[in-house]
Amino acid sequence: MPDLRKDPITGRWVIIATDRAKRPTDFERNEVTLNGGAATCPFCPGREYKTPPEVLAFRNGTSANQTGWTLRVVPNKFPALRVEGELAREGEGLYDHMNGIGAHEVIIESPEHVASLGDLSEKHVEDLFWAFRDRINDLKKDARLRYIILFKNHGESAGASLEHTHSQLIALPVVPKRVQEEIDGARRYHEFKERCVYCDIVRQELANPVRLILETDQLAVLAPYASRFPFETWIIPKLHQSHFESCDVSTIQSLGSVVRTVVRKMDKVLEHPAYNMMVHTAPIQEGPIGHYHWHIELIPKLTRVAGFEWGTGFYINPTPPEEAASFLKQARV
Amino acid sequence: MPDLRKDPITGRWVIIATDRAKRPTDFERNEVTLNGGAATCPFCPGREYKTPPEVLAFRNGTSANQTGWTLRVVPNKFPALRVEGELAREGEGLYDHMNGIGAHEVIIESPEHVASLGDLSEKHVEDLFWAFRDRINDLKKDARLRYIILFKNHGESAGASLEHTHSQLIALPVVPKRVQEEIDGARRYHEFKERCVYCDIVRQELANPVRLILETDQLAVLAPYASRFPFETWIIPKLHQSHFESCDVSTIQSLGSVVRTVVRKMDKVLEHPAYNMMVHTAPIQEGPIGHYHWHIELIPKLTRVAGFEWGTGFYINPTPPEEAASFLKQARV
Repeated sequence: MPDLRKDPITGRWVIIATDRAKRPTDFERNEVTLNGGAATCPFCPGREYKTPPEVLAFRNGTSANQTGWTLRVVPNKFPALRVEGELAREGEGLYDHMNGIGAHEVIIESPEHVASLGDLSEKHVEDLFWAFRDRINDLKKDARLRYIILFKNHGESAGASLEHTHSQLIALPVVPKRVQEEIDGARRYHEFKERCVYCDIVRQELANPVRLILETDQLAVLAPYASRFPFETWIIPKLHQSHFESCDVSTIQSLGSVVRTVVRKMDKVLEHPAYNMMVHTAPIQEGPIGHYHWHIELIPKLTRVAGFEWGTGFYINPTPPEEAASFLKQARV
Repeated sequence: MPDLRKDPITGRWVIIATDRAKRPTDFERNEVTLNGGAATCPFCPGREYKTPPEVLAFRNGTSANQTGWTLRVVPNKFPALRVEGELAREGEGLYDHMNGIGAHEVIIESPEHVASLGDLSEKHVEDLFWAFRDRINDLKKDARLRYIILFKNHGESAGASLEHTHSQLIALPVVPKRVQEEIDGARRYHEFKERCVYCDIVRQELANPVRLILETDQLAVLAPYASRFPFETWIIPKLHQSHFESCDVSTIQSLGSVVRTVVRKMDKVLEHPAYNMMVHTAPIQEGPIGHYHWHIELIPKLTRVAGFEWGTGFYINPTPPEEAASFLKQARV
């Protein structure tokens, strides 16, 4: 059973994933080679038996765990957290921990063995977000779960270990610190201004579009003013909504084309970088809130996080976001 | 002039380092090769002219910026922040920024072209900490500067770009968010318990030494209970002290042998990993505080930070700290 432990100073939780316990010799010395190639890929059609049974699939009348799907969601074979068990919190001297209750699922975005979101159709990319919505609506019935994050690791240096295009979701029994900080910061802004900070950001960035990369009727795509990383990109819905799972059909459709276009622009400008994509949304057991606003963050992996960043949480970004936005805006895809 | 910008949601500052502005083609596609080799190394004796003039050196009567030194501190040739200029804060619509005032220095730990702290004598490692103390005591006279961090990036994947053993310090005009979080968390603990949380950690870890790696009269070395990373190691002084620069001679002497030993243990167990080392200390313009306690964090670079961690601040650690401590404790060096 994985163990959730809390840092007694900062209150940050970590998952001690004993199920995947690593001894010193298990760490790769050099760059890992992605477990790639369609010949043995566990995510390719015909090898459905290689994953745990699916919890969701988009298919046209075919049977579960058979071929014939266009998207498939399965539990992670090596989960960081587990659904079974009790959420017992307890002390250990001055420390606090609890059982690693939660869910860890993999969203296989396409039956085709392609590596990048940019190589999928818009409909396939859109379906990733429909699947996320469906999984949130299912998992939130479990009252022990308080937060769900969707994330994608693309490329070895961004943490991917399988080549076939996929995302992951993790459902947690606590609201993570980084998310709570965002919510608290947005609440303080709202208390002071009586407006949502994300709505204000979208307004300001559209009015003077020096950091704007693209926009649709539903979404604004921009390089954030205080970007931590070169070419960091946020996708923010124009309509205020705290919870991703509440967004309407037109927004999810727009995400299909926008996410695909942004990835293709990054592929062009940055020569197919590794990247991480994360959906930031409000805690699942709370009702709609006026001060928080769901959005997507995309971070190409171009620099190394080093001692200064680890020690301070202060980031050094060598590329002004205005320049990054200009490159991405102009890239024709 | 570098630009300091504040994220309007979380309050996190970033340095937009325009002096080193990077265009898309400037990012390395693959692993960088360390700018190594003694033949052209700018940190080797005889090439003092290749660095900006030294701000501190330990030498036996020889002239500044000549050979004959055992340790040398020079301004970074490509600084993330600059000493010159005014600390003007201003708004930009809803955003806040200020000039990138600060200092960025390099501590060349030895005239010998060796790559690792573990290959230096104890006295050389000790001198790194004497130099840090001297530089804090000098830089704190500049009232604009509020925080100084000492950090070391060892190995390419930990962010090093030169092979010759060196550390860096950055002096900042704000107290960084990550540091403030630690101080605030420690203050809350102190308000509740009327004891320092770090002192309590040291007491508990010495009483039941399952995570203890080694100890001296002055220092305890342990794997923290909620380690974010495999083999994460903290070095904590046993005597309560908020500011690194206040520590006594015996503690700095003990650091020389302890830091060297810990690095050698990691080299043995983990086959010479890349790592980051950071000194966490209290803000330089404040007097001694009862709730904060300086310490050193050492993080070998064994795993990749991916979308889940970026999105949540929640870390997945595949190695229980008790196992990591046991491996490091037993390693004979």
